[in-house]
Amino acid sequence: MNLENIVSPTLILNKKKCLSNIRLMSEKAKKHNLIFRPHFKTHQSRIIGRWIKKFGVNKITVSSLQMAEYFSNDDWKDITVAFPVNIREIETINSLAEETQLNLTLENIESVEFLSKELKYEVGFFIKIDTGYGRTGISFDIFLLIDKILKLASASDKFVFKGFLSHSGNTYNTKNTNEIIDIHKDAIYKLSLLKKQYIDKYPELIMSIGDTPSCSLADDFSEINEIRPGNFVFYDLTQNKLGSCNFDQIATIVTCPVVAKHKNRKEIIIHGGGIHFSKEYLTIEDKKIFGQLVILDEKGWKRLDDDFYLTKLSQEHGTLQVSDSILNKINIGDLVGIIPVHSCLTANLMKEYLSTDDEIIDHLSGNLK
Amino acid sequence: MNLENIVSPTLILNKKKCLSNIRLMSEKAKKHNLIFRPHFKTHQSRIIGRWIKKFGVNKITVSSLQMAEYFSNDDWKDITVAFPVNIREIETINSLAEETQLNLTLENIESVEFLSKELKYEVGFFIKIDTGYGRTGISFDIFLLIDKILKLASASDKFVFKGFLSHSGNTYNTKNTNEIIDIHKDAIYKLSLLKKQYIDKYPELIMSIGDTPSCSLADDFSEINEIRPGNFVFYDLTQNKLGSCNFDQIATIVTCPVVAKHKNRKEIIIHGGGIHFSKEYLTIEDKKIFGQLVILDEKGWKRLDDDFYLTKLSQEHGTLQVSDSILNKINIGDLVGIIPVHSCLTANLMKEYLSTDDEIIDHLSGNLK
Repeated sequence: MNLENIVSPTLILNKKKCLSNIRLMSEKAKKHNLIFRPHFKTHQSRIIGRWIKKFGVNKITVSSLQMAEYFSNDDWKDITVAFPVNIREIETINSLAEETQLNLTLENIESVEFLSKELKYEVGFFIKIDTGYGRTGISFDIFLLIDKILKLASASDKFVFKGFLSHSGNTYNTKNTNEIIDIHKDAIYKLSLLKKQYIDKYPELIMSIGDTPSCSLADDFSEINEIRPGNFVFYDLTQNKLGSCNFDQIATIVTCPVVAKHKNRKEIIIHGGGIHFSKEYLTIEDKKIFGQLVILDEKGWKRLDDDFYLTKLSQEHGTLQVSDSILNKINIGDLVGIIPVHSCLTANLMKEYLSTDDEIIDHLSGNLK
Repeated sequence: MNLENIVSPTLILNKKKCLSNIRLMSEKAKKHNLIFRPHFKTHQSRIIGRWIKKFGVNKITVSSLQMAEYFSNDDWKDITVAFPVNIREIETINSLAEETQLNLTLENIESVEFLSKELKYEVGFFIKIDTGYGRTGISFDIFLLIDKILKLASASDKFVFKGFLSHSGNTYNTKNTNEIIDIHKDAIYKLSLLKKQYIDKYPELIMSIGDTPSCSLADDFSEINEIRPGNFVFYDLTQNKLGSCNFDQIATIVTCPVVAKHKNRKEIIIHGGGIHFSKEYLTIEDKKIFGQLVILDEKGWKRLDDDFYLTKLSQEHGTLQVSDSILNKINIGDLVGIIPVHSCLTANLMKEYLSTDDEIIDHLSGNLK
């Protein structure tokens, strides 16, 4: 990695770690006989998508139609939009459905009625199920509404029912890995009740789950037959603190130039703020933290013996709280590395990646297409 | 405003409100005999920059060299980078300094020593002063370090000392407008001590302050002779809750499609998440809020009789907590308007604006150049 050429905040990707994360999850899916439909909202990169394709993946998940278009234009032919369908985008839906196996996510009658009239091409659909997260979706036990959606959809020749899709985002609010496993078990129990109810009528029913903590930690998927993790390609500080990954699996950092030092309060000011990291934070010992300091070397980065954090962020400034010893070692004009709290949001802001092999890698939000 | 064409999250700018905010601040600067050097990090737009130019403004502030380049290429010739100089960017500094009156912000010896050797063209410089915010800068009373910087800089023919620059970002942590005024008074008192110390040697000394709350509310600038507010062009929910502006002065919203409704918990799910609003939040009655609901009409938007907030955000989903009455009025596929918590970060993420007159307006982070 050529650090000398880096002059401003830069998102660095360790390709080796990223490929190893992909390999692990892909092998896990195979072992458990699961369809592996990774969520591309984390990396949003065609180049990284192609790395994933080499592991035999041909089905993907996205969170917007814009993202679906980005990957459809890079030859992905089976795309699930795991977001409640936005009926205002009917034109894009029709143009994507003409070209690809497009799967929509439905959870209300109004959308089904609208699409029944306006769809020009066949689409697959999943019904979004809430197993306890409480963000959106139909509660797993409201069979009446599920039946109504299935009945309405079956009246149109444009709808093909694929299965039920859930996302246990509540695994992100846990205090230890046991709680993650408990949420996962609860979700698969609820989904298995649903499966029992519908499997006779729909023998090819897909039961699809999504969150990276469950997919990383669970060893029992029982009635589930598809996983859609996204964050696992990079992981981040949030996943590490949750216990979904170890520190060395984290595949991205932001390198930031040091612009000021304040010895009296042991603070280092970097160019790296909310427009680089996002304002996502973790709470550690009652303090907000926005990233963790690592030391850069020619091959990438290394963890320090002690943990030092990015404790304040404004639009462009970041404040690192360090020890006297670290303060003395780091000079004005040096680069430091910061493990992001939430790699999806950081990548979206940084707009492109520089790999540790000095390759520039695209992101949907950037200019490289 | 043609709402029918809006199909996905869109940043709307009310040009009339924006121009009125610019006019007010520009008149205030004239009245108090202040140089008006607005900070362009909020809008980051060449088109909005040109609106500001029509009020007689020819000096601007930016927070990065990338932003300096963006505006230098649109014919701005006097640019202060109000961020501690990043010496790794020496090439860009030299190329900008050749073309424009570039003013850097200095606060340590190391940067002055480096620049003394490496600068090829003359630059102006401000010394960054901390009057109590505690983010960065030299404390107003450390004359020894200030003298050392001035002495070192005076040994080079590339440095022209302009004055002292401070930013009372602590006005954002206040509970009422009296506290803002107190912080402002404290800052100008401290800066006046500094001015007294250096005015004889530097009779053209500029004392420059920056934050929008102080610039909006203060009526006494005494020893100050330059202001650099940025957020005032749009304001936002944060400024409104602080008391810096009234609700009708807020000039931007994000329009978001409604994709799901949950009657039992009175929640509306919109396409609009952390990648649109940022994760910046306000705490109101012990709850985090990420935006406030407004109703759209042909001319723009209107405040509701009651306040309803965006209470949860994930990457693409937003959750609005509303009343039964609002829940019944808003349908799947409708657009709602959301006042952002922090307009600078929201604009940076949204990448372009649509004006209420249906004009598309550039942002540095987007593709329109």
